Amino acid sequence: MTAYDAIRALQYRYARLLDDDRLEEWPDLFVERGVYKVIPRENLGREPPLPIFFCDSRAMMQDRIKSLREANVYNLHYSRHVVSNIEILSQRDGAFEVAACYTVYQTDLEGQTRLFSVGQYRDVVAHDDGGLKFREKVAVCDTFSIPNLLAIPL
Amino acid sequence: MTAYDAIRALQYRYARLLDDDRLEEWPDLFVERGVYKVIPRENLGREPPLPIFFCDSRAMMQDRIKSLREANVYNLHYSRHVVSNIEILSQRDGAFEVAACYTVYQTDLEGQTRLFSVGQYRDVVAHDDGGLKFREKVAVCDTFSIPNLLAIPL
Amino acid sequence: MTAYDAIRALQYRYARLLDDDRLEEWPDLFVERGVYKVIPRENLGREPPLPIFFCDSRAMMQDRIKSLREANVYNLHYSRHVVSNIEILSQRDGAFEVAACYTVYQTDLEGQTRLFSVGQYRDVVAHDDGGLKFREKVAVCDTFSIPNLLAIPL
Repeated sequence: MTAYDAIRALQYRYARLLDDDRLEEWPDLFVERGVYKVIPRENLGREPPLPIFFCDSRAMMQDRIKSLREANVYNLHYSRHVVSNIEILSQRDGAFEVAACYTVYQTDLEGQTRLFSVGQYRDVVAHDDGGLKFREKVAVCDTFSIPNLLAIPL
Repeated sequence: MTAYDAIRALQYRYARLLDDDRLEEWPDLFVERGVYKVIPRENLGREPPLPIFFCDSRAMMQDRIKSLREANVYNLHYSRHVVSNIEILSQRDGAFEVAACYTVYQTDLEGQTRLFSVGQYRDVVAHDDGGLKFREKVAVCDTFSIPNLLAIPL
Repeated sequence: MTAYDAIRALQYRYARLLDDDRLEEWPDLFVERGVYKVIPRENLGREPPLPIFFCDSRAMMQDRIKSLREANVYNLHYSRHVVSNIEILSQRDGAFEVAACYTVYQTDLEGQTRLFSVGQYRDVVAHDDGGLKFREKVAVCDTFSIPNLLAIPL
């Protein structure tokens, strides 16, 4: 299996865990001190870029999932994360800088689907515990006028 | 060519045959006693899961295509099947359990495109006649409130 | 790296350059006398197929980009080019006939995203200058009633 194949598998697994409502397994795809950020595309040029969501450890991600479960809002919709255009942009010291496109759909309980968010992942992937994990996952979202954007990880 | 590459090629060929209106070739992508089902996502947990469409042989699929041609309804739209997030979930006795996302668009004769259905393929792919074919293709559709859902294979 | 992997990398790079507003680098993905065409799907059967956009050299593409920059219209939207279903249909004399699906989104400055165009690429890719480039890229668009279709390359 090439590095590209392994990175692709990681990205697809990430999407599938979220869509199958296996949210508790989501933090395990990150290294212990992994970073997850959501940044509107228009903020990218700013310094600092002002993320609308930010986690910098697995523990913080687990807390977030617990809040979601308690709020019990997330499950009013099914989500579908489509990941495409996966590219390795650079490689250094065993870490890969990866770009990808994401398209997230939400479907309500009536079976109506709408485009929820389109954007780009800008990730750093590295070996950890014998497999590849996200050291950093940044979702740069084109679509930012999303009322419940923070409900589900992108 | 790896198994993954061959499975991906099969999935894309499936999509292209449908989109190029080569419907008569669609059953050939299945083994003789192949199964094709469409199941709304909300039915997945039920027992039995109540598919809204079901074929369990190539002959049955051929009949279906013949009906479509006679009804002559299908060709009021162009379809576009986008397949992504292709994963091999398991492998046993030469058969592969495969998951993928699909996004199907329909475009009317005025050139207006709309999202038709989003969902997941849950397939079993196996060697047959010297190539890979679908032993089972299950389209689990997030979007189920579709008036003409049964017009075109997903 | 297989031919497939290299072609996929070319397609994704094409998408990323456009989406990152690196339009001046877009012509470099083509050979010197490369052809870029946009053809509505309904015109495909016609002879001649009447493209709604046509370039037959890098120089012509560079002119087009210059016009876009001067018109300064293109940047009222962010674009997102998703490329999927990449297939090598045939190979002859070092040139590859390639099919792919594209989905292009546009997001306005308010962060509202809409589906802009769905269709198929029908490309010829060949070695040039030590790498793979487009000898021909034809965007066959399902969606053709697009007011500003000509603003951004598909």
